[in-house]
Amino acid sequence: MKLSNLVGDRFKETPSDCVVASHALMLRGGYIKYVANGIYSSLPPLKRITKKIEEIIREEMDALGGQEVSFPVALPASLWEESGRYESVGSELLRFTDRNGAKMVLGMTHEEAAVQLVRDYASTYSRYPFMIYQIQTKFRDEARPRAGLIRVREFTMKDAYSFHTSQKDLESYYERCLRAYQRIFARAGIPEVHCVASDSGMMGGNLSHEFMLLVPAGEDSIVLCPECGYSANMEAAECVYASEGTDGDRQEERADDRQDALLPVETPGVHTIEELTDFLHIAPSRTCKAVVYQKNKDDSYVILFLRGDLEVNEAKLTAFLGEDIYPAVITEKSGLHAGFIGPVSLHAPEGSTVLFDRSLKDLSGLSCGANREGWHLVGLDMKRDCPEAEYRDLAKAFAGGICPVCGRKSLTISRGIEVGNIFQLGDKYTRSMHMQYVDEKGNSHIPVMGCYGIGIGRLAASVCEARHDDYGPIWPISIAPWQVHLCCMRGDNAEVHAQADRLYEALQKAGIEVLYDDRNVSAGVMFSDADLLGIPVRLVASPRNLKEGCVELSLRGNKASAVKIPEEKAVGSVLSRIRELTGALEAEVPERI
Amino acid sequence: MKLSNLVGDRFKETPSDCVVASHALMLRGGYIKYVANGIYSSLPPLKRITKKIEEIIREEMDALGGQEVSFPVALPASLWEESGRYESVGSELLRFTDRNGAKMVLGMTHEEAAVQLVRDYASTYSRYPFMIYQIQTKFRDEARPRAGLIRVREFTMKDAYSFHTSQKDLESYYERCLRAYQRIFARAGIPEVHCVASDSGMMGGNLSHEFMLLVPAGEDSIVLCPECGYSANMEAAECVYASEGTDGDRQEERADDRQDALLPVETPGVHTIEELTDFLHIAPSRTCKAVVYQKNKDDSYVILFLRGDLEVNEAKLTAFLGEDIYPAVITEKSGLHAGFIGPVSLHAPEGSTVLFDRSLKDLSGLSCGANREGWHLVGLDMKRDCPEAEYRDLAKAFAGGICPVCGRKSLTISRGIEVGNIFQLGDKYTRSMHMQYVDEKGNSHIPVMGCYGIGIGRLAASVCEARHDDYGPIWPISIAPWQVHLCCMRGDNAEVHAQADRLYEALQKAGIEVLYDDRNVSAGVMFSDADLLGIPVRLVASPRNLKEGCVELSLRGNKASAVKIPEEKAVGSVLSRIRELTGALEAEVPERI
Repeated sequence: MKLSNLVGDRFKETPSDCVVASHALMLRGGYIKYVANGIYSSLPPLKRITKKIEEIIREEMDALGGQEVSFPVALPASLWEESGRYESVGSELLRFTDRNGAKMVLGMTHEEAAVQLVRDYASTYSRYPFMIYQIQTKFRDEARPRAGLIRVREFTMKDAYSFHTSQKDLESYYERCLRAYQRIFARAGIPEVHCVASDSGMMGGNLSHEFMLLVPAGEDSIVLCPECGYSANMEAAECVYASEGTDGDRQEERADDRQDALLPVETPGVHTIEELTDFLHIAPSRTCKAVVYQKNKDDSYVILFLRGDLEVNEAKLTAFLGEDIYPAVITEKSGLHAGFIGPVSLHAPEGSTVLFDRSLKDLSGLSCGANREGWHLVGLDMKRDCPEAEYRDLAKAFAGGICPVCGRKSLTISRGIEVGNIFQLGDKYTRSMHMQYVDEKGNSHIPVMGCYGIGIGRLAASVCEARHDDYGPIWPISIAPWQVHLCCMRGDNAEVHAQADRLYEALQKAGIEVLYDDRNVSAGVMFSDADLLGIPVRLVASPRNLKEGCVELSLRGNKASAVKIPEEKAVGSVLSRIRELTGALEAEVPERI
Repeated sequence: MKLSNLVGDRFKETPSDCVVASHALMLRGGYIKYVANGIYSSLPPLKRITKKIEEIIREEMDALGGQEVSFPVALPASLWEESGRYESVGSELLRFTDRNGAKMVLGMTHEEAAVQLVRDYASTYSRYPFMIYQIQTKFRDEARPRAGLIRVREFTMKDAYSFHTSQKDLESYYERCLRAYQRIFARAGIPEVHCVASDSGMMGGNLSHEFMLLVPAGEDSIVLCPECGYSANMEAAECVYASEGTDGDRQEERADDRQDALLPVETPGVHTIEELTDFLHIAPSRTCKAVVYQKNKDDSYVILFLRGDLEVNEAKLTAFLGEDIYPAVITEKSGLHAGFIGPVSLHAPEGSTVLFDRSLKDLSGLSCGANREGWHLVGLDMKRDCPEAEYRDLAKAFAGGICPVCGRKSLTISRGIEVGNIFQLGDKYTRSMHMQYVDEKGNSHIPVMGCYGIGIGRLAASVCEARHDDYGPIWPISIAPWQVHLCCMRGDNAEVHAQADRLYEALQKAGIEVLYDDRNVSAGVMFSDADLLGIPVRLVASPRNLKEGCVELSLRGNKASAVKIPEEKAVGSVLSRIRELTGALEAEVPERI
């Protein structure tokens, strides 16, 4: 293809609303065009990239025995009512009514549609296990789309659903899918993707993993242990605190404070933990703070106490409560004193839930609210003063915290983009939607299900985040829009132009995907366009090279790689560069299991 | 792939709501699953068919220089407001609001999105002509989805948009697209598709063609002249009537009636043309009937007079009026007498539009309503009694009518499925959406546009309509879900099973797509499943064949083609059958232009 015919504009200036590199580069390189908030059209270079990604995914899904199907984008609400998600999912589920007044939704995930498709088919054990998948447009009415293709409202997704007669069978299939996902990311050029344990959220089920690409642009927090390799999404990361016998610091603190009595202290105007620690000259970890929510269902209060230096993990809290919550509005009527809430003599409104985070267990010498405007307590001893408290894991993990696997104080927190996720769903959907099969003996059972998603556009943008320089993306050979970018410098020079034309033809004949820039533009324009298109192999014809009977061959993002080669060897050299790049990539791909 | 693993059920009984063969066969063969009114999921066999159709279409679009892009499914209403279609298109356009209250639509066609994508890019003449296309899910909220995949609400469509600096350039490109469409249908196995002139409807523009597959299940009426090859959609077909000099019949009638006076006749209880012709013992063609509509805009009346044996062509009438209409509700207040409306002494309500169809021109001796309850007139002479009438072409063409091209009374009417359509849009969208380019001299112009659509699922269903027998589809080799269906009869016979396994492996090794049925089921079940899957080449291993060291090779839908071949020659024979079938198909594909 000639660059002069390529639909789309490239430009220099970074648009002001771009906060991540892939967003800016994909706009600047003519990959995407803004249509509406979180909604983009794809231009030809991106379409070529996503088609290659889709082919990689298809190959891996087919190798797992997956069968491609397609579900509707517009689904009847009745299906989502069957599973209960029509009510339980928030306003990111786009609900509408058709011309006949029938309630419908735009599919944001297709568990219900998958069960509906195979419910009759899979009524006998002999048809299990099986997996179906589709690659299709989805709509998720995000409150805050951002970062270009990283978080959009409309996107193309590969979603797969497997069905099994036992949890054991699901687990072994899940392992194979997990490996297939590692292969997909490696084949797409980002083998460094981390597989981390995650919270299942609205999907339900009991075990799930996210595939995280660690880049500063990520919007998820990942808890990692560099010592033992443990990794988890912040939402799912367990918090561990040293027990008496092992934590020197804590024991020391305890020794200091053992004899403290619980005393009220007047603290006028002190509402926040920061103000309290300033006022009392203590560390935040020596306070017991209260965080208050209300339940969506009935607006009743949820009061959670945790160590003052920690944050609430709302995913864990929601999972524990089994229902959605929102930050509380504390009214006078409630009897609570915002800023002065503490665990002793708390008169919580009727119907409230009072919870204690595990971080407080066995602590003493803490400061906390006195449940009285303008007053706090010092000398709080959890065992002595809150003997009834039950402790649960409801806080966020933190850098320097204890690894729940190896026990070292080694945790780090990184930002990551979720490029894929897999779930063991158990029987959440099959049970609610009355899917059953008959076993060898004629007994009925409910099958279990796994589901496996990858957002295609987000994956393309993530590769761009991980593989770019200041001038543009550096696409891996496996998903690059073209394999070779052929530049004809000084297109007004007939001899150079003729040489470049010869090369264009020879490369195409050899089955190589070439983008040919024969425009009569400056070297600056030509190279900045080439950088924005990020094609891995570059071939330059120019008057100087022509004099030597040569062309210049280089790799994108690697100036040192530039070599001059005789014109007649150009095609062969390009082919070996492509082979080398492909080989390097494949070396990172783990074996199938 | 083994049939025992194929997701989907096949069954014998035709579902009661199926009125066309493809609907029944696609349900019975496990191709589609009903989800909601006009909405289906696709099972693996259909997905394999549509992927092959999509590849054929991609190759033809790419050969035209088309570049694949993708537009959003969910579009902001503002884009459709720019073109004016947000208001002008009826309730088949699904309108909704997102969580922030922004008005949106589900794309049913993407002219607006195409202009938005390239409006900035194509601001200078040097970037023309170009074409972009996508293959994508569309939603059209049909009032009456029917016939399985023939008329659905959600469908996958290839839609292409070309941009040009002159009508002449558009026309020559349009010719190439028309040829590409003929190639696509021929490659998909239905070279008999007719290209017919059509009405542009809501798309606008001045010239368009539909590609019609003539099958009884079709919901469109096509006017054809077997004498000269003229063809047009009923909506667009011009009606021609013999002029005085050439039409013997008519002259004769005129001679008979020349002297008739206009006389009232009492016709109690006679409201319809049928009742009138019975009452007066005349042919319907000797009457002048009135058909009354009201305008959507202001409910004003539109009264159209035409020959009693003809029907109103509402597409022509709408196009002439430039606005939408609906069948009138005739109230007492209107002063009209339903059943007795005639062109003489008509007191039409203020604001009414009175029209005369060309079929009435110069006729005399007609009967018509007397605009008085219970009375008609006889002896109507259009020239004498309606001297002011202007005649327009507003009736439907009819079998035996005069061909507007060759002038013979040769027209036939056939049913057809529209499998594709192409439009010369002119500047309808580019003008309303302010798209401009600058020419060599720096002057601004508005480009012109063409658009080109094919519904993928409807094409698959249409091929099934055209290529099936009582037992199932007979898929053309180019789009068949698999190339070979391998049946192992008596799967409980170890030797036969071993032979079939050997063949399965050898066929796969040769790169042939095989569906392998090694289930231990009866011959009846095995063959009826094979018929429903419609795979063109069939290979049967059985105890009897094994005794002779043979397998049986046959073509779907052609029992006479069955031959026994030695096992070792099976793969070679299958390959030559595939080549023959492919060759026969390619022989029907016209050259590119």
